[in-house]
Amino acid sequence: MIAIDWGTSTFRAYLVAGDGTVIDERRSDDGILAVESGRFAEILDARVSDWLDADAGPALMAGMVGSRQGWIEVPYVPCPAGIAEIGAGLRPVEWGRGRQAWIAPGVSCRDDAGIPDVMRGEEVQVLGALDALASPPEWLCLPGTHSKWVRIANGRIDAVTTHMTGEWFAVAKAHTILRRLIEDGPLDELAFEAGVRRASTPGGLLHHVFGVRALGLFGELAGRSAGSYLSGLLIGHELVAVPAPPPRVPIIGSAALTDLYVRAMAVRGIQGTPMATDLVVRGLSRLSAFVRAHT
Amino acid sequence: MIAIDWGTSTFRAYLVAGDGTVIDERRSDDGILAVESGRFAEILDARVSDWLDADAGPALMAGMVGSRQGWIEVPYVPCPAGIAEIGAGLRPVEWGRGRQAWIAPGVSCRDDAGIPDVMRGEEVQVLGALDALASPPEWLCLPGTHSKWVRIANGRIDAVTTHMTGEWFAVAKAHTILRRLIEDGPLDELAFEAGVRRASTPGGLLHHVFGVRALGLFGELAGRSAGSYLSGLLIGHELVAVPAPPPRVPIIGSAALTDLYVRAMAVRGIQGTPMATDLVVRGLSRLSAFVRAHT
Repeated sequence: MIAIDWGTSTFRAYLVAGDGTVIDERRSDDGILAVESGRFAEILDARVSDWLDADAGPALMAGMVGSRQGWIEVPYVPCPAGIAEIGAGLRPVEWGRGRQAWIAPGVSCRDDAGIPDVMRGEEVQVLGALDALASPPEWLCLPGTHSKWVRIANGRIDAVTTHMTGEWFAVAKAHTILRRLIEDGPLDELAFEAGVRRASTPGGLLHHVFGVRALGLFGELAGRSAGSYLSGLLIGHELVAVPAPPPRVPIIGSAALTDLYVRAMAVRGIQGTPMATDLVVRGLSRLSAFVRAHT
Repeated sequence: MIAIDWGTSTFRAYLVAGDGTVIDERRSDDGILAVESGRFAEILDARVSDWLDADAGPALMAGMVGSRQGWIEVPYVPCPAGIAEIGAGLRPVEWGRGRQAWIAPGVSCRDDAGIPDVMRGEEVQVLGALDALASPPEWLCLPGTHSKWVRIANGRIDAVTTHMTGEWFAVAKAHTILRRLIEDGPLDELAFEAGVRRASTPGGLLHHVFGVRALGLFGELAGRSAGSYLSGLLIGHELVAVPAPPPRVPIIGSAALTDLYVRAMAVRGIQGTPMATDLVVRGLSRLSAFVRAHT
């Protein structure tokens, strides 16, 4: 099969053997924001058409390619959503020469107050993680620009909660008064952990972030440590907001981000366990069985 | 006396009669960020030297003019700080022709965790408010880019808590993914109040702000209402963070901001009461009695 992770800013394609081994892999900057409407088939063809000669099997895609700004908008599958529900939500697009490619749907849910939340792309990583883990976890954490916490019940995605942690960190560093205090530098572990601990004290996030400035004014937080403290504050507030987290939480993300979340979770007595990074391929491989049900 | 409110982006001067009446008033864009180091005396002289002919009495200044980026850095007075402590913290600057002007100090405090907080300029408004109110309140609220909540005990400033509410609203609107969803428009009262109520549900601020996007995706929050909802969310989180607020809270701020805070407080069962806007003059007038103690 061909597995494609087509996000906002990156295109990644994998040629996958029947046993799940990745035979070939390609990356480009053709994220969906860089692709003109109507030209998705052309881009896909240009990137992977030579794989077709080898009778590669079905092509499946995950990510923002299925959003309103993508190739077609694939409706979100509501929670609870397991592999069967997500598989039933696959939608085909025409890819020239009579071939179809399949786009995975996102997943949506509503909380007790009726407020919606969504993910698109991460659900395929979660399917890969559920396939990889010996027993399903209570929660999975996918840190990032928009961190996702995914609750699992009966082997299906039961709820998703998004936190704008990464984006607010970047914006605070670049555009608020804190930018003048924060110097780039390696992680200051003590400052990071102090930020995480601060997040579980009273006062609220909007007050705690001002503490970066006040500590700086009194010479109690060095510029090269301020970014680590702010990062700890924001990740700490994300963790505080998760209701009754279990003692172990699998983390799906880049090595650097996963490391930060493992550290932050440790401060709160949670053992974060990093997952493998090939979960999109693993999730799409599992979904490929559902293409037959559609055809 | 001459009362001067010299902040980051604005210079305001008032010629005040012995009975507290404002006789004349001037404003300019000579905020401290626009004044080159060493040229503060020159600017002050250019703006108000003609008032000196009338034997105007002492000149007192409040605001960022006393910060590290200002004329001189006037040390913060630690809490508890009443008019006597703040008066004792006045510092003189030479203003040519043998005259002195006096800069009010800011106020600092530390919370139970030892984290500092500060204000500079607002403390003079608080002194004005304490002079204007028949009995001292438990808390005063000064909404703004950096909202201040000031706790009063025994007629003195007992604690200050800063929330970056206004700045985070501006930055979220301008620099996050939410900017694409938010259209300018008049206040949508229902959306604003829904945001305030949302702030008191579980999930945390970093999650609640993503709700602006998710509600927009499902067509449940119009673009012209999204800014009001976000504003309600942020102000609501500020209110949630205030420990045990009293039933009535005086609010010191512009009419537009005060109106928002009165609405938000009403959702939480608190009666916000707008204060007059001439409190800097009133506070500096009271402080002028302490100039004699220094000279």
